[in-house]
Amino acid sequence: MDDRSSTAAEKAAILSQALPYIREFQGKTVVIKYGGHAMETLELAQLFASDVVLMRLVGMNPVVVHGGGPQITDLMRRLGKEPTFIEGRRVTDSETIDIVRMALVGKVNREIVAAINRNGSYAVGLSGEDAGLIRVSQRDPQLGFVGDVSAIDPTIVVRLINEELIPVIATIGVDADGQAYNVNADAVAGAIASALDAEKLVYLTDVAGIYERWPDENSILPQVTTKRLEEILNSGLVSDGMIPKVESCINALRTGVKRAHILDGRLPHALLLECFTREGIGTMVTDA
Amino acid sequence: MDDRSSTAAEKAAILSQALPYIREFQGKTVVIKYGGHAMETLELAQLFASDVVLMRLVGMNPVVVHGGGPQITDLMRRLGKEPTFIEGRRVTDSETIDIVRMALVGKVNREIVAAINRNGSYAVGLSGEDAGLIRVSQRDPQLGFVGDVSAIDPTIVVRLINEELIPVIATIGVDADGQAYNVNADAVAGAIASALDAEKLVYLTDVAGIYERWPDENSILPQVTTKRLEEILNSGLVSDGMIPKVESCINALRTGVKRAHILDGRLPHALLLECFTREGIGTMVTDA
Amino acid sequence: MDDRSSTAAEKAAILSQALPYIREFQGKTVVIKYGGHAMETLELAQLFASDVVLMRLVGMNPVVVHGGGPQITDLMRRLGKEPTFIEGRRVTDSETIDIVRMALVGKVNREIVAAINRNGSYAVGLSGEDAGLIRVSQRDPQLGFVGDVSAIDPTIVVRLINEELIPVIATIGVDADGQAYNVNADAVAGAIASALDAEKLVYLTDVAGIYERWPDENSILPQVTTKRLEEILNSGLVSDGMIPKVESCINALRTGVKRAHILDGRLPHALLLECFTREGIGTMVTDA
Amino acid sequence: MDDRSSTAAEKAAILSQALPYIREFQGKTVVIKYGGHAMETLELAQLFASDVVLMRLVGMNPVVVHGGGPQITDLMRRLGKEPTFIEGRRVTDSETIDIVRMALVGKVNREIVAAINRNGSYAVGLSGEDAGLIRVSQRDPQLGFVGDVSAIDPTIVVRLINEELIPVIATIGVDADGQAYNVNADAVAGAIASALDAEKLVYLTDVAGIYERWPDENSILPQVTTKRLEEILNSGLVSDGMIPKVESCINALRTGVKRAHILDGRLPHALLLECFTREGIGTMVTDA
Amino acid sequence: MDDRSSTAAEKAAILSQALPYIREFQGKTVVIKYGGHAMETLELAQLFASDVVLMRLVGMNPVVVHGGGPQITDLMRRLGKEPTFIEGRRVTDSETIDIVRMALVGKVNREIVAAINRNGSYAVGLSGEDAGLIRVSQRDPQLGFVGDVSAIDPTIVVRLINEELIPVIATIGVDADGQAYNVNADAVAGAIASALDAEKLVYLTDVAGIYERWPDENSILPQVTTKRLEEILNSGLVSDGMIPKVESCINALRTGVKRAHILDGRLPHALLLECFTREGIGTMVTDA
Amino acid sequence: MDDRSSTAAEKAAILSQALPYIREFQGKTVVIKYGGHAMETLELAQLFASDVVLMRLVGMNPVVVHGGGPQITDLMRRLGKEPTFIEGRRVTDSETIDIVRMALVGKVNREIVAAINRNGSYAVGLSGEDAGLIRVSQRDPQLGFVGDVSAIDPTIVVRLINEELIPVIATIGVDADGQAYNVNADAVAGAIASALDAEKLVYLTDVAGIYERWPDENSILPQVTTKRLEEILNSGLVSDGMIPKVESCINALRTGVKRAHILDGRLPHALLLECFTREGIGTMVTDA
Repeated sequence: MDDRSSTAAEKAAILSQALPYIREFQGKTVVIKYGGHAMETLELAQLFASDVVLMRLVGMNPVVVHGGGPQITDLMRRLGKEPTFIEGRRVTDSETIDIVRMALVGKVNREIVAAINRNGSYAVGLSGEDAGLIRVSQRDPQLGFVGDVSAIDPTIVVRLINEELIPVIATIGVDADGQAYNVNADAVAGAIASALDAEKLVYLTDVAGIYERWPDENSILPQVTTKRLEEILNSGLVSDGMIPKVESCINALRTGVKRAHILDGRLPHALLLECFTREGIGTMVTDA
Repeated sequence: MDDRSSTAAEKAAILSQALPYIREFQGKTVVIKYGGHAMETLELAQLFASDVVLMRLVGMNPVVVHGGGPQITDLMRRLGKEPTFIEGRRVTDSETIDIVRMALVGKVNREIVAAINRNGSYAVGLSGEDAGLIRVSQRDPQLGFVGDVSAIDPTIVVRLINEELIPVIATIGVDADGQAYNVNADAVAGAIASALDAEKLVYLTDVAGIYERWPDENSILPQVTTKRLEEILNSGLVSDGMIPKVESCINALRTGVKRAHILDGRLPHALLLECFTREGIGTMVTDA
Repeated sequence: MDDRSSTAAEKAAILSQALPYIREFQGKTVVIKYGGHAMETLELAQLFASDVVLMRLVGMNPVVVHGGGPQITDLMRRLGKEPTFIEGRRVTDSETIDIVRMALVGKVNREIVAAINRNGSYAVGLSGEDAGLIRVSQRDPQLGFVGDVSAIDPTIVVRLINEELIPVIATIGVDADGQAYNVNADAVAGAIASALDAEKLVYLTDVAGIYERWPDENSILPQVTTKRLEEILNSGLVSDGMIPKVESCINALRTGVKRAHILDGRLPHALLLECFTREGIGTMVTDA
Repeated sequence: MDDRSSTAAEKAAILSQALPYIREFQGKTVVIKYGGHAMETLELAQLFASDVVLMRLVGMNPVVVHGGGPQITDLMRRLGKEPTFIEGRRVTDSETIDIVRMALVGKVNREIVAAINRNGSYAVGLSGEDAGLIRVSQRDPQLGFVGDVSAIDPTIVVRLINEELIPVIATIGVDADGQAYNVNADAVAGAIASALDAEKLVYLTDVAGIYERWPDENSILPQVTTKRLEEILNSGLVSDGMIPKVESCINALRTGVKRAHILDGRLPHALLLECFTREGIGTMVTDA
Repeated sequence: MDDRSSTAAEKAAILSQALPYIREFQGKTVVIKYGGHAMETLELAQLFASDVVLMRLVGMNPVVVHGGGPQITDLMRRLGKEPTFIEGRRVTDSETIDIVRMALVGKVNREIVAAINRNGSYAVGLSGEDAGLIRVSQRDPQLGFVGDVSAIDPTIVVRLINEELIPVIATIGVDADGQAYNVNADAVAGAIASALDAEKLVYLTDVAGIYERWPDENSILPQVTTKRLEEILNSGLVSDGMIPKVESCINALRTGVKRAHILDGRLPHALLLECFTREGIGTMVTDA
Repeated sequence: MDDRSSTAAEKAAILSQALPYIREFQGKTVVIKYGGHAMETLELAQLFASDVVLMRLVGMNPVVVHGGGPQITDLMRRLGKEPTFIEGRRVTDSETIDIVRMALVGKVNREIVAAINRNGSYAVGLSGEDAGLIRVSQRDPQLGFVGDVSAIDPTIVVRLINEELIPVIATIGVDADGQAYNVNADAVAGAIASALDAEKLVYLTDVAGIYERWPDENSILPQVTTKRLEEILNSGLVSDGMIPKVESCINALRTGVKRAHILDGRLPHALLLECFTREGIGTMVTDA
């Protein structure tokens, strides 16, 4: 056989090796928290979009959840408003929540939907306000319209999944009076994964995985249990940005989600590699 | 009978008189172009929201379509960008389309969804970018990202209607490359009504109806045919803002929509009056 | 605004106030025991028919149950047979049961079906003999073919409800051998409400409600619990005709029906007032 | 083999011979006009009932249509009213139509339903007034409330068939105002068979079939075409009672019904013999 | 009436007497182990085929399970291979299992399917290898590819039943590695009946039923309980060929099958007689 | 990035490149004529099986059609019968058709089903005799039971596809009397593709494609129209074994199949390469 066939044979072999993974995840729901570098770089964003479509096409049910802190900050500043934070949470007054909505629903959500739909008409943007999806309660009066998830009504998400669409969810919540709130996207991703009995919860982040001893690069864990994760959390050796992810992972795994993954979203096709190959990337968390 | 009963009897009679209208429109789709004063006043917005929910509850399928010119202009100015118009169309460069999306999808659409959902979890916000809903082609290179509707794929709208939800559609369209465009909301409302084979297309505006001789207040037409409407249009005696509504009405009625109505959205419960009572308000247009 | 609009605004407001009631009762089943004056007066009968249709149109599932004592007595006399009663129950020999069937199924049921269907093709007449609906056992050999409900098979009723039709049920039952029996309509209404897990059981009667001390007009109870109702029943201060209603109410509420109402059927649109307005009419019974 | 087995073998053979007939008529609708002697004799009525249930059980969709002239006359006389006829049609004033309804819906229909349901809960009684089933127009003002079929809405019949129930239809019709009318049952049977696209229309009568030269017993036709039937009709050699049957047959076969049969209802199990055996009984009519 | 009618009347009566049996078994599943003389005689095979089709047509769900020991032995010998047995089980090496498959799937199964389908397109041949139907584990290494049923996945059978088809199952099983095995057909029939929650399990054999004292012809039991059957089994007075049938009967009845029957397949239409008449043939086993 | 990642990136890229092919063929039916070397070599057979499963998993509907000439010849010889051929067609007497069935249904079909089901419970073996699938008429009395396809009833195939199973079809046909016949597998594959409105018809053969001038290796055509194919056929420069494939291709493309492919089944993963990559292998035929 000549070179061309040899390449062809390799291609065929790689496709064929994906078979057991595709079989395992047919009809399973995978909630992907999308954010960080992978969202901000045009090229990575396009690869992410096509990976999500491929997951859909081979029979998985991907659900994308996103926030957009930098985009909110940017729009606030463009509108002449300097953000303030208390313990890492954005103080959100009435004008700010309006800006948050514009940034998340009107900009970030739209860009993700657009990137996915360049591959076909699959994505539908949702906000937590749609059809009662994300219900919240106020976290702390000092923070204003910052909410904690109190309930998820996944009906609209399930309906879109059943129609073989890809829901893309901006993490705005509402309280009982219909007031909009800003909610932490990592927490929402976990809560939605639980409400959907998801097979997998994937966090696409800017780190290579969970570190046993942050920031020691040799301490990245390929696999970890929720029990060990709680110990690491209590040890204080977890970076601030990782805390909500780690906490949400533990919660989600304790309430029915099978596996959680912390992946490095800066790696091209990180999702595909995790889902369809034997290559171990990032950290896998299981309940134990 | 005492006074209380007498009032009760009147109430009962009024409810009972709605019966033939409810019967006639069961299971029928009504596309409502929402805009102007009715959208900008908080109290009218709440009445509109509860009217739409009542329509849904008694078995109609309301679909809300909206633009939001003033809100776009406002956000542009807050971001330090002065809008320019050519023949009434907003020149829309790359930065502007981003602002349009934030204003329409991230603000106006959210406010309508929120107002409706204060009455229950009925509304789901959509942009024309979702699931291939509104496909456009560029109107004129000078205008930038301003599109004309080239195709409507109503699948996602039909799915939401079948789930007894209320779709609320922001009028952003996409071209074949996935680029977002600003589209005239009056035109989109007509095109969606056609694509859905709607029973009614209702324009909520700031005028009392169609004037035979604008602005002669005595010339408001309670009823008019598409044929006569074309003559009025050709006469030049139609106000600028009405032209897209009138043209869209004619198109929609010529492609399957049964009736179109131009109502005065400043009148409280204008929708209810039109849908459930004998009271003639605004102008009804039929094909002939 | 002129007078006409003012009236229009009032109409719209009254319709709009019905929204919470319509929302609350969507998809809920309401069993209505129809009888007395409301059935015998042509005008009230027509109002009743249109009220039932309105309930159907806004999404409730009304089920009408009726007897027809006066009509049976009348037909017996026309056929030269004098009715005899033992403790208020009609002695029913083989010839009488034939007459009962003709009066209830062939006359009263037909008239109700006809009145409803003047508003559209909604009603379907049923007898308890159809598809095994009402199974009875003999009450007392002395009474002949007078039965007590031993089982309800609501399948045919549920099927008609699912087809958005209005079942109108004549209260004839059958025993295990297929023999027809006369059954008390109040008792059947309660038993059918239980079998359907109805939201409401409504008795349309010739009194203004339940009296704490019959016949003291000032003692009508707007609301009462099953516990208190049993005490009143035991007090002996309940009129004879009310006893089966009161007993059936208690049974129905104890076996899953949410609320029962005793309304004055002589009041025009009594059903609409009870279902769609804040006006308190008659007596509401709840389990406690 | 002994005698018992020999009988058993014969039984098995007869059952087995029914196979091709059962296969041919699976899922097919058979409209049976039931009347005459077969309806009035208790034993024949019970055999008829079990035959209809057997048809249902082996997968056919039997629909029973009945009138009841003698029963109407009987009830009229018991109520002191002497029937009068013009050209064989009963003059039907307002009081008479009430009696007709009581006799047909309240007595005859009930007896058929009861006889069938002694074999299981299969039958549901219908009147042409239910759910808009039989629409009529007045035949002749002199006759009063005597109607001719103007339209059949078979929806409710189809629904009951789909639920594997057996509709039993009393031939009362309504006009556009909801007024009840007496209608010829032979004509209704034909019209319903057409509306249902029935495979077969069977008339159970008191004669052995269609006579070529009435009343010559040797002239019974085992098979005849609509063309020949029209000639016989025009010859005048058809008995009065047969005329509506013959006319309805021709109409039904000309509008989609595959075959019509005139059977002698006095023969026990006439329906079974016609449907499941090679035995030729009565007259079969086909379109040609 | 003449002779012909008299015969007709008898036919009709016999058909009519089948009604209660047809009613009782509508929608019920009957698993038939087919084998022995009934399978090897062309005429009996054709009667069996038409009986199974009649069962299907009147609403039962027949499922045919078969082995084919003589046909395997015959093909082995034609291919020059002498069968050897250990305790009545065929020693099955790799070449033999190939021959078993050819004989059962390629010959016996095909002949049964062909015989049934001469009556219409009802039968679909299955092997236990199809869609994971019969999973086995090796019985004994000495026997080679002889398996015991370890699990039944009845999904494909249920699907075919739902499509109103007749599954005909050749008793080949597979182990976890996909290797084919020969399995005892009596045992498979029982296991499939359990997995399908069958109403009846019927063994068509070459004996007249179960003998209390084999081979005393006067000791055939018309009816027997599983408890008594175990005693008979323990008594040692059961012929070798009956042991797997008796054991499978007991297992099946203990795991949900309602009744089992051992019939003499040499009797023409044995299935029809058992299913549709009062004639007692063979032995009925119930759990007790 | 180290070597491992680099490989991972390549893998991800290859998977990602399959996206447009997967999207294009979702829900489309592909009929694969399987035969020759690819069927006879164990390793190629296993690769073929996993390729078919992968097609199924990513949403295509593969249908496998096979013959088995060499296996028939082999079994005939083992049974002491020397095959004879007339113009390339096997003379098939009564004994031979039995052997054909055993070889195709009892051996080849079983081996394909087993190979596929080692990857999960997907395959169901069918013969053309099942549920009326392949109807044939005798080709030539001299040839005995050799048939030409006269009709395909694809119902059972469609049902299995709808259940997401993989039908594997042995090419035995039946005539109107239920007699089995041997049929050319290439012709059956084309006829089934037409009956299913297949998107693709793929022939896995032992040649590299269609040769313009057989056996000149430089004349292989990557693409060809039916028109040109007819010319080549008429030129006489087509090898004998290719004639039925070429004729069936033309027929299938003329009756609705979109594209046909002649692939070299000796190439590992030939199916995957054709379906999921840009690599051009074999010959593609389109209608023109």
